[in-house]
Amino acid sequence: MGGLLLLVQGGFLGAAQAAVDKAPKTLSETSKECVACHKKKTPGIVQHWGGSKHYRANVGCYECHKADAKDKDAFIHDGKKTKVHISIIVSPKDCAQCHEQENAEFAASHHSKAGRILGSLDNLLAEVVEGNNGMVTAGFPEGVSAAAVNGCWQCHGSQVKVLKDGELDPATWPNTGIGRINPDGSEGSCTACHARHRFSVAQARNPENCGKCHLGPDHPQKEIYDESKHGIQFYANKDKMNLDRPKWVVGEDYDAAPTCATCHMSATPKQPVTHDVGMRISWNNRPPVSVRPEKADAKMGLPGKDVPWDDRREAMKDVCTNCHNGDYVDAFYTQYDGLVTLYNEKFAKPGLALMALTKPLLKPAKFSNRIDFVWFELWHHEGRRARHAASMMGPDYTHWHGTYELAKNFYSEFIPELEELVREGEHSGDAAKQQAAKALQAKIDEVLNSRDHRWYLNKMDPQEAAQRKKAAEEFKARYK
Amino acid sequence: MGGLLLLVQGGFLGAAQAAVDKAPKTLSETSKECVACHKKKTPGIVQHWGGSKHYRANVGCYECHKADAKDKDAFIHDGKKTKVHISIIVSPKDCAQCHEQENAEFAASHHSKAGRILGSLDNLLAEVVEGNNGMVTAGFPEGVSAAAVNGCWQCHGSQVKVLKDGELDPATWPNTGIGRINPDGSEGSCTACHARHRFSVAQARNPENCGKCHLGPDHPQKEIYDESKHGIQFYANKDKMNLDRPKWVVGEDYDAAPTCATCHMSATPKQPVTHDVGMRISWNNRPPVSVRPEKADAKMGLPGKDVPWDDRREAMKDVCTNCHNGDYVDAFYTQYDGLVTLYNEKFAKPGLALMALTKPLLKPAKFSNRIDFVWFELWHHEGRRARHAASMMGPDYTHWHGTYELAKNFYSEFIPELEELVREGEHSGDAAKQQAAKALQAKIDEVLNSRDHRWYLNKMDPQEAAQRKKAAEEFKARYK
Amino acid sequence: MGGLLLLVQGGFLGAAQAAVDKAPKTLSETSKECVACHKKKTPGIVQHWGGSKHYRANVGCYECHKADAKDKDAFIHDGKKTKVHISIIVSPKDCAQCHEQENAEFAASHHSKAGRILGSLDNLLAEVVEGNNGMVTAGFPEGVSAAAVNGCWQCHGSQVKVLKDGELDPATWPNTGIGRINPDGSEGSCTACHARHRFSVAQARNPENCGKCHLGPDHPQKEIYDESKHGIQFYANKDKMNLDRPKWVVGEDYDAAPTCATCHMSATPKQPVTHDVGMRISWNNRPPVSVRPEKADAKMGLPGKDVPWDDRREAMKDVCTNCHNGDYVDAFYTQYDGLVTLYNEKFAKPGLALMALTKPLLKPAKFSNRIDFVWFELWHHEGRRARHAASMMGPDYTHWHGTYELAKNFYSEFIPELEELVREGEHSGDAAKQQAAKALQAKIDEVLNSRDHRWYLNKMDPQEAAQRKKAAEEFKARYK
Repeated sequence: MGGLLLLVQGGFLGAAQAAVDKAPKTLSETSKECVACHKKKTPGIVQHWGGSKHYRANVGCYECHKADAKDKDAFIHDGKKTKVHISIIVSPKDCAQCHEQENAEFAASHHSKAGRILGSLDNLLAEVVEGNNGMVTAGFPEGVSAAAVNGCWQCHGSQVKVLKDGELDPATWPNTGIGRINPDGSEGSCTACHARHRFSVAQARNPENCGKCHLGPDHPQKEIYDESKHGIQFYANKDKMNLDRPKWVVGEDYDAAPTCATCHMSATPKQPVTHDVGMRISWNNRPPVSVRPEKADAKMGLPGKDVPWDDRREAMKDVCTNCHNGDYVDAFYTQYDGLVTLYNEKFAKPGLALMALTKPLLKPAKFSNRIDFVWFELWHHEGRRARHAASMMGPDYTHWHGTYELAKNFYSEFIPELEELVREGEHSGDAAKQQAAKALQAKIDEVLNSRDHRWYLNKMDPQEAAQRKKAAEEFKARYK
Repeated sequence: MGGLLLLVQGGFLGAAQAAVDKAPKTLSETSKECVACHKKKTPGIVQHWGGSKHYRANVGCYECHKADAKDKDAFIHDGKKTKVHISIIVSPKDCAQCHEQENAEFAASHHSKAGRILGSLDNLLAEVVEGNNGMVTAGFPEGVSAAAVNGCWQCHGSQVKVLKDGELDPATWPNTGIGRINPDGSEGSCTACHARHRFSVAQARNPENCGKCHLGPDHPQKEIYDESKHGIQFYANKDKMNLDRPKWVVGEDYDAAPTCATCHMSATPKQPVTHDVGMRISWNNRPPVSVRPEKADAKMGLPGKDVPWDDRREAMKDVCTNCHNGDYVDAFYTQYDGLVTLYNEKFAKPGLALMALTKPLLKPAKFSNRIDFVWFELWHHEGRRARHAASMMGPDYTHWHGTYELAKNFYSEFIPELEELVREGEHSGDAAKQQAAKALQAKIDEVLNSRDHRWYLNKMDPQEAAQRKKAAEEFKARYK
Repeated sequence: MGGLLLLVQGGFLGAAQAAVDKAPKTLSETSKECVACHKKKTPGIVQHWGGSKHYRANVGCYECHKADAKDKDAFIHDGKKTKVHISIIVSPKDCAQCHEQENAEFAASHHSKAGRILGSLDNLLAEVVEGNNGMVTAGFPEGVSAAAVNGCWQCHGSQVKVLKDGELDPATWPNTGIGRINPDGSEGSCTACHARHRFSVAQARNPENCGKCHLGPDHPQKEIYDESKHGIQFYANKDKMNLDRPKWVVGEDYDAAPTCATCHMSATPKQPVTHDVGMRISWNNRPPVSVRPEKADAKMGLPGKDVPWDDRREAMKDVCTNCHNGDYVDAFYTQYDGLVTLYNEKFAKPGLALMALTKPLLKPAKFSNRIDFVWFELWHHEGRRARHAASMMGPDYTHWHGTYELAKNFYSEFIPELEELVREGEHSGDAAKQQAAKALQAKIDEVLNSRDHRWYLNKMDPQEAAQRKKAAEEFKARYK
């Protein structure tokens, strides 16, 4: 285990502890000038900074916001005595001046790549289906979708556009999406979690922090955490969490409850903190069919391609065993794996196969067919909820928001919609469609007659039915 | 800006600070008698009061509950030595004895008028569709709907009915709805926010307080706040909020986070606190198509009709700039306005026009047609969620609970229902219906062929399609 | 009232205060050995225990985990110096060694019987509709449903299977479901609420604790509490709740707010704490039609069959009156009863009658018909939400998640599905089905023409219509 952990650490976290510049002895004159004015103009952020470690280390406004004259977004702040270049956005590249290792870990994570969704077809929803080109700004003379600007981009990150004099296009900023594509080309936004300008590590360790994005119908991790025993303990014992301790090693600095950070990022007696949040997860539950994380990393060209899922699982187990015995943890994983497999085999794979056959029978524009939404929610919403909830022991989300909704929509929406497509194809008078309808019907029949689905046709295996009846009778007999 | 703020303040908040009666030197004998008995009977409320500012100012039970013998709801409390008239309900008129300015501001707000919905047709839902006349009380011998009593009225306020001896009809009380219509004719309920009997201003500043009503499918402001950076900061820093400071000026008394009160009501270095919650909002997102708040105020005969939205926006910006630079705030408003416009133009206006044409084709009773619910939720639930969430920077609600649901239901429920109505009309054999069906079909065609919707017919502007493809390719090229 | 309370207490709580074994003077040698090793292996739980009352009373690991060699799940922990038998699960029978009265109360409650659902047909959902036999473990060689394992069982409790050497089958453990069926035959899991290994009573009094199970679409008590005035007060005043006081008598030890425990379990000046959570509820809102709790208890063979609902209501009123006057409480119950009656009469009874007539017209497998889900959610989800929310004064859940959804789905899903079944039956060419269709149509007509539903046919009683119109006009006249 020690060896495994070493491997994980050695993988790409192994860079020597970032060479932190020595803290300045006094606050720079330029920063003093910033503060003098902003103390009146925007007192809140000056106070935030005044309560931060940056203040105590004489890292002021200018130290972070300074820019090179050649930087795309550099400008000279009007009215300042000291004519220096600054930029509005402090990018991960800027933070890396002092926080090199954190930046390297973050850059290797899916978090920093969240903005890449903007170039994907998923974008179709926000840009076309929900949106239009009605929002015209200097940076988007042809218009851009306000649904993307106010929705997707706020979590995933915008591609920031610089106008004249360092001004940022208002469609692309304010934006603290974790995968923001910055004027300097860097990907990410440290302020997504370490918010303005206190940079409080305590705040970042609170579950609400992750809940800015990890919530809602498609990945309700915050809601699941809240209903789990872990969340229950957190809210009852928040005052015992020592959230502001620099070291914050689970089992040493606190033991009342884990937060999101504890399990996915923070230090244990055996592991250092990491800013690559995928290093302890053993399933990637994002796609229609769950895959191992190294496959997802490989697809994105990330170094995690060389860190197999079982090493990551060991790293997570190392967290668990601070409070749970090894047998307990192993048994938990048996349960979780069981749920992922159930979802993959019963719903995801048949669903994908069926959807593939619908193509010739659908209207051509994606999301112009009702079934597009039904299938999308099956895997993207309900299927994820079930899997995420099982991973975090939230039974309500596993069942009622997960497998129950999956089954309800699979049988009472998806199958009927498919059957309707078959009917329409059959009556289309178009030979190609009739052929496609036939193929689809054959697949429907195959799926519904399979072991997992034949109950629906009232063809439950007689042996299984007898066994179910017997079990129920035996169970009831205990209470007579 | 100073001038603008002055205007807002001068508008109708300008009454001299309420003439607060001098606090009594000792607690009245009558109140002492109340306390002596209630200390045993209802210890909780006596303790609440004992922890309140009222206690410290010798404002006791009788000072607030005293009544004139002629008051509709006046009665003499059984068994009291001191035979004085009291009433159960302490109305805003009663509170105004000391809190004159707060009452004046409140009386000018939509909050105090929330009970007026009871006389509107919206009422149809709770009284007829969901309810019946099954709940018979002394005040409602013909019966009243328990869905209205337990639902609508608890947020909007009941019209309190007085039975004999000051007794209140149980269908109308207990009730703390913010627009309650009181026996003395006044509108409102201060206890809606300043709860029994501690009247704690700290409690009223907590987001949960507003969340009694401002939550749920139709206006989830509490949920949106919770997921916003503002909420994240609040929950992480609640102990730094100084919520119990009398003055509570943002940037002076606290800076960790804003709560609902901070932005909509509380003092800034430049603005006093106001109990007219609409004075800082620049869109009224309640109706199907968003309007400016002065229009909504004019419709209700409120003094706010003379306070234009841009003055209100300036008042809000004054709050924002305690922590955000002016450019940031301006850019935020560009984003928010963009979302409101997108919703108004793409969904609300076409939806209204289409619904207007369905009338001859629908069953006559409102909500007896499936499309009644579909359209109602489009604007009343999903459309509001998108707009409210954009206003408060909650991307999950803007997108997943907002524009995504809007689009999904517009294209996969609303349009198909309309098309079904057309089909039914065409086959009705009724000339008027056939005519109506034709008109509706023409409008459907017009909407679907418009710039915002033609993607649905696979008629996306080739230029736009090419541009989308190019953008995606360029985006992906960055990562090769 | 005193008499009534006495009766409740005397009923089956009357066992003399549990004979608590004298606390040991020192920690046992065996427990010391456990601690010595687990301090390193699982530091968190040792720290939890170190903060517990058990620690202070020298009740250590072995005192709770000790087992008899004959116990099904007994095993000798490898590598221990002291070769003693222990078991992983500490069952209510084990806790009862010291906590006899708590155990007796708990054993009489529905909580302890939650596992019995596993033998019911409700199980069909998780085992068959949502699940499959894909999860194979040593204890389930024929496979078991991962949806049941990760979903239902985690709240309701698993039937724990013991493998060799005290090992527990991973499909059945980890499991803290409150009705867990333990290897020793006992029912329940104290750790469901009193979590590992701090056993903190303060934590158990937090609303989040109950929210592990009492939340979600089918019984959102946690969400309702959170939006109620009670929850608002709790979150604003958590620091004044004295949650860790041993006695914790409402009105004496705290008065800021009630939590779930306050109303359903904890002590008042007149009542002791009880672990039978049903002793203060006057409606059982679990089934399709609400029943009185003594009927539900009788059905399960529980001693509560002899405690009538009005006695239980008096017990609850005793809690309420610590902060509310008796009139207030009585009027609240008028409102709540009104809502239960509205639901029962308008939706539940007609719904049941209609569903009974659909049987010959449905596909035979339960949940293979869309209407199975529609009806299930009407009573199991929406109907419960309305009733639970009225019971706890949460207007948003009463209305929007309750009666609104009920009405929407009754009229726009349930009725149309029934009508479709009629049409299909009529055209089936099968005489039995045609007969059934006729009977169903007659019932639909009867229901829709009844007083509660005729508005749907635009047949509102002219008198009622006139009255509604008049009321609206009078109401509006006030504001001209």
